[in-house]
Parts: sequence; C-alpha cells; structure tokens
Amino acid sequence: MSANNIVKQHYKISQAERIRLLQQKPLIIWLTGLSGSGKSTIADNLEQLLFEKGFKTYLLDGDNIRHGLNKNIDFSEEGRKENIRRIGEVAKLFVDAGMIVITAFISPFKEDRATVRSLVSEGDFIEVFVDCPLEVCEQRDVKGLYAKARKGEIPNFTGISSPFEQPEQPEIHVHSDKASLEECVQEIYSFIQDKIEIR
Amino acid sequence: MSANNIVKQHYKISQAERIRLLQQKPLIIWLTGLSGSGKSTIADNLEQLLFEKGFKTYLLDGDNIRHGLNKNIDFSEEGRKENIRRIGEVAKLFVDAGMIVITAFISPFKEDRATVRSLVSEGDFIEVFVDCPLEVCEQRDVKGLYAKARKGEIPNFTGISSPFEQPEQPEIHVHSDKASLEECVQEIYSFIQDKIEIR
Repeated sequence: MSANNIVKQHYKISQAERIRLLQQKPLIIWLTGLSGSGKSTIADNLEQLLFEKGFKTYLLDGDNIRHGLNKNIDFSEEGRKENIRRIGEVAKLFVDAGMIVITAFISPFKEDRATVRSLVSEGDFIEVFVDCPLEVCEQRDVKGLYAKARKGEIPNFTGISSPFEQPEQPEIHVHSDKASLEECVQEIYSFIQDKIEIR
Repeated sequence: MSANNIVKQHYKISQAERIRLLQQKPLIIWLTGLSGSGKSTIADNLEQLLFEKGFKTYLLDGDNIRHGLNKNIDFSEEGRKENIRRIGEVAKLFVDAGMIVITAFISPFKEDRATVRSLVSEGDFIEVFVDCPLEVCEQRDVKGLYAKARKGEIPNFTGISSPFEQPEQPEIHVHSDKASLEECVQEIYSFIQDKIEIR
C-alpha cells in the first residue's frame, strides 16, 4: 500500500450519508424517572411501534449495559455518574451511525443528563420525563427493590436514600400513573415523528 | 399504566427482527496491527465499499472512541485492556442492533482480542491481521509517533517498548506492505460477503 494511496483515499462515510441510506434522522430518546415508573415498558413498546413503521432503532437499558459495558462500575455517586456518561457516549455513537436510540435509565441527576444532551447536536436529545409518584412506584414495587431499600439493604436508592432531580423542561412529560401505556407511547411518538422522518 | 399492561406488553425487538429490517447479517470486522500498518485506511475504504453496496455499517476507531467513551482511560497496561474491553462491548451492542461494525485499533494483546471474540456468537467476530513489518511502519511514521517512541517520549508503544502479539489464526491475513489498498479491501470483502448477505 503506497503512501500515495493512503493519503488519497482516506475518506469517511458521514452521518449525512448514513441518513440517506437508512432513510431516517437519528435521535436520542432519553427516558428518565424513578425505578418502577414504567420507563422500560414504555421504551419497549415505543421501539416496537417504531420498528413496525420501519425505523431503525436500538434500545439501551440495564439488560444490555449493566452486565456488559458497565459491569465494572459500582453504585457510588461517582460510579453512577460514569454509568450515565458511558451510556451517553454510546448513544452518541449510535446517533452518528444514523440510528434512533432509546435509553431507559433512572438517570436521577440533572447535571448528568445535561452532559449527555451536550454531546450531540441541538435537537438530537429528547428528554422524556416518565413521571410517576414515588408512592405509586413503591406500592407497585415490581422487583421488590423499594422494600429492600427501606430496610437499608440497597444504598443510594433513588427516591429513598438518594434524590431524583426532576427535569425542569423536558421535551416530553408523561404521567405514567394516569395515562395508559398506549397513551404514553403515542405522546412520545407524536412529538418525535416529524423529527425522524425524511420528507 | 396498569400492572396488566406492563406484564402483557413487555416485548423486545430481537436481533432476528433487526436482521429482517436491515436486510443484512451483522458482524464485527476487527482489524489488528501495528501503528502505521494501514488499519484506518483499510477500514475507511472497506466501509465505503460496503456503504456503496447498501450495507449498514459503523466504524469504531481512535477518532470516535478515544475522545469520547474512552477519554478517561490512560495508556497503562490495565488502561489499554479496559480500552479494548469497552470497544468490544460497544461492538457487541452494534451487532445486536443488526449493524456491521468495523474496528481499527492496534489491539496488541491476544487475550484482549480473545475476550472480544467471546462476547459474540461464533462466526460473528472476524479477526483481520493487517500485517506490515515494523521497519516499514517505522519508516513511514506518518504521525511521527515512532520517532517519539524511540526517544522514550511515548511509554508502552507497541513494537518499540511494548509487544505486538501476532494473531495465530486470524480469519483474514492481509500484507499491507505488499498488497495494494484495493487488494487488501477486496480480500476482506470476498471473505465476508456471504456472511453479511441475506439470500
């Protein structure tokens, strides 16, 4: 391989070209909310809806992140910060690749969410506040985590022993205790539809 | 959102469904070789070829990894291990998303490459040894790194002060000092073509 070749042919596929190939505009749809607020279920169903409409999506959640990329991170404040930072950086890579990324993590700290927002172009980060009162989440307690947290068995548990900093101006605010799953998903879809479609 | 809904509609889009939507089989094409061996140039041109044929790809390299996801990692042995581990985990996510991922990192240690291989299904990891003698890489020294390493200004520099463990049984072995850029790219494409196409 001659040095000439190396210089001459160095060329990268741009995000604009990927957008043309994938026939969609990429986006991060960032769900934030308490444990048990319904983030994962909404994320799953939103992805299903987008998939049916032909959009190329990927979902980042505890299932594929905590046991993989972030398996060497603890639940200390610093660890949780790094957890969100890495997820944000991976979401950015997917956006660069032209994909629509949905994330479902508690992400309780404003500053961390703002950091992720700053990683991508303006408008490419859609913050979705999945709002459900602590009492309702705790009463459901699908995974039994709140009971454990109350007993002090889980340190730094959001809502119990660690704060959840509510988004002040999220792009979308769904009330998962009042609206049905379908309504929550539809509300998000209505907001993003014209941002992801190519006309 | 009722508990009924939550249970009933929890459903994830599978890799198989993504393969159908994207009309391709995902794969990691892992380029390994000395600094200056031509990994990035081969990766760029391979991606360009795949793009032209309609494949949905993404390239992980120093440009998008070192200043983002891995910006908090140093160049110690432990740091370099963690560098490759994270890249492998991200490549795995892209494969799960149905994408063809090309990576261009020195990745000098056998054990680290084997770890990445073990993350994905058998056959989904294609190791490409971009083989170029140290003398040739050092003579080119496009980025001036070898000169600095010889002066001791860069510690743990692969080939100078840190070993490059050659792949023993790479899926593809290209000799970038003898073959042209086009030949190297074509050799890789010929090998992967029937693995990524859906018939």
